[in-house]
Amino acid sequence: MRLSSRITNLLGGGSDGWEVFNRARALKAEGVDIIELTIGEHDIRTDPRILDEMHRSARAGHTGYASVPGINSLRDAVAARITQQTKSLTTRDNIVITTGGQAGLFAAHAAICDPGDAALYIDPYYATYPGLIRGTGAVACAVQARPENGFQPDIADISAAANGAKSLLINSPNNPTGVVYSLQTMQAIADWCRDTGTWLISDEVYDTQIWNGAHISAWSIPEIREQCLVVNSMSKSFAMTGSRIGWVLGPEDTIDHLINLSTHTTYGVPGFIQDAASFALTQCPGLEEAIAAPFRRRRDIALNILKNSNLVRNVPCDGAMYLMLDIRATGMSGEAFANALLDECALAVMPGESFGQAAAGHLRVAMTVADEIFQDALTRLIHFAEGHT
Amino acid sequence: MRLSSRITNLLGGGSDGWEVFNRARALKAEGVDIIELTIGEHDIRTDPRILDEMHRSARAGHTGYASVPGINSLRDAVAARITQQTKSLTTRDNIVITTGGQAGLFAAHAAICDPGDAALYIDPYYATYPGLIRGTGAVACAVQARPENGFQPDIADISAAANGAKSLLINSPNNPTGVVYSLQTMQAIADWCRDTGTWLISDEVYDTQIWNGAHISAWSIPEIREQCLVVNSMSKSFAMTGSRIGWVLGPEDTIDHLINLSTHTTYGVPGFIQDAASFALTQCPGLEEAIAAPFRRRRDIALNILKNSNLVRNVPCDGAMYLMLDIRATGMSGEAFANALLDECALAVMPGESFGQAAAGHLRVAMTVADEIFQDALTRLIHFAEGHT
Repeated sequence: MRLSSRITNLLGGGSDGWEVFNRARALKAEGVDIIELTIGEHDIRTDPRILDEMHRSARAGHTGYASVPGINSLRDAVAARITQQTKSLTTRDNIVITTGGQAGLFAAHAAICDPGDAALYIDPYYATYPGLIRGTGAVACAVQARPENGFQPDIADISAAANGAKSLLINSPNNPTGVVYSLQTMQAIADWCRDTGTWLISDEVYDTQIWNGAHISAWSIPEIREQCLVVNSMSKSFAMTGSRIGWVLGPEDTIDHLINLSTHTTYGVPGFIQDAASFALTQCPGLEEAIAAPFRRRRDIALNILKNSNLVRNVPCDGAMYLMLDIRATGMSGEAFANALLDECALAVMPGESFGQAAAGHLRVAMTVADEIFQDALTRLIHFAEGHT
Repeated sequence: MRLSSRITNLLGGGSDGWEVFNRARALKAEGVDIIELTIGEHDIRTDPRILDEMHRSARAGHTGYASVPGINSLRDAVAARITQQTKSLTTRDNIVITTGGQAGLFAAHAAICDPGDAALYIDPYYATYPGLIRGTGAVACAVQARPENGFQPDIADISAAANGAKSLLINSPNNPTGVVYSLQTMQAIADWCRDTGTWLISDEVYDTQIWNGAHISAWSIPEIREQCLVVNSMSKSFAMTGSRIGWVLGPEDTIDHLINLSTHTTYGVPGFIQDAASFALTQCPGLEEAIAAPFRRRRDIALNILKNSNLVRNVPCDGAMYLMLDIRATGMSGEAFANALLDECALAVMPGESFGQAAAGHLRVAMTVADEIFQDALTRLIHFAEGHT
């Protein structure tokens, strides 16, 4: 029986770039001792205080249908956080609570793009970007952010790819590169979107993980605010990846439409999870910083090791829980390097080629294991590189 | 800034038919003592054993990203339940766990319908049906199930509306009518779908609420199984409405595509909710029956009261938590009746017109208040009808 073109083309055909990851998982399942520096999952679990509040809410009876836009206390807590971070007055009417950032990204594109519309995204990219765009029936168009520009997108490249695109999806702090977009980059992107009438969709889920400089939210740029949707979540900031709770921030009238879409696609987020998220945002001072701290520490460990290597160089790593390593001096591709590293050193990292074309000859290293293991792993990685040149 | 046609047309324009409900909620907020027999929410909360298991799972560390298709224990428990109910061998590969039945219905249509394709649904209908179809970019086409046929859909009506439709969405036991589709109806629908190459999407979320006769799952009809997706959830059967957990059941290759879609639209369902659902399905014998029991009891109360009325007659009420009452003998529309009933008797029911055109001159009464209150409310409703003719 025939299925929709949207769904049969969702993955775009060809390799999904996750062979090394899958191979590592298979080896691990066979009992091989593999160090995984692959996916963006913390090495800690959700704070028990948050889980206890979730249980309290559920046992108190918050187990029925919850308000689809989100409960007021959570929308207010999110709005207060955004107002404080961006100095832009934000209210609950600018917020819809979503089933994680993933549902927010999908909803944002569904709200903007009609089938056949072009939707831009920046390469290197998070794995689901092209598929979620195709899932709305739109055409996913990559714009390369080049290593020679420190993976900051260039307006000339965006313009060249635009082709009447309805939206541009950006992500800073960036997965997979760890790059934080500069004020100049953000302002230039905002100006371009305004001049061309393009919606800006800004994925800011790593906004609490800044190691150097400052996070510039798209929402803090006044002239873009009427054509901007910011997607965020509790996943990375509060180590609540599994709770599937996030939000979309945008102009009130667009948020009204996104609430209608939520009614018809998910019917909202569990009330006890919303209560837990509200508690986390308002009653756990310092928790976000504490959750970010290990990545900051491991980045310092890595920079200290890498400063002595001419073969393995780090891309400017100003945010997020990843390091992007440039291994082009070894003459190997990211894929060849990562596959050999897995086989010879039982160490799994992601080839840059897993994230598009722009990061070829690079590796993404997730800083998601204990400090000593991380230090040992990076030392082995550099030693491996030296042995293969 | 322009939004997508899909989202701006989501509601189809015009009244949403929920004025009586909204007015009742507003009166209640002002402190007026309103009896609400409006929405499909149990008058009990989720069983504390299920909530304690959720907490145990979360505290044990199941707070990270969960398997997107669903954890194996839950998929296996769902498959075992379906195998037992339908006598059709079902495995986890036939199941994808979704963010409630709503996400399942949306995903099923997204998997089948391309933008512009016609998608059929039966009127009277659950409120989100046309909007979720429009949300995929498809064209929502209603087929009336007529009161003179006891609200069982007629193949001649389906054929007349079909117009090359890619899918037909049915719901038995039915919301809003309380009608259970007969074996003849189900077989005729299956035959028609097979003959015309149309996908059957069967919403079976009330399958544990059967008061008379038997539930015929679309999955139990062998000749339709390769072109059938069944949507179900824990919401009504386990009083877990707020937990947002359900599933789609279908052919393995189609489920594979739906798993890809989930990766890009929600990234799965919280692991601790999945553990709780698995516990409910396997460790709480008799709970589904206990949750259904009050509705069975209240139906008997209603039939006992209604048997003496010539003005208010019940539609055959063989399942689900609603009664559909035919009030055409009063000469009033459902809307006029419901509005006056709210004003004069502080009693809120849904006009049949809220659910499309076929149930005009009817009322939907949710059996979701305590027995004594329900008995009193129905008595007042009949008294009101008698006073207005």
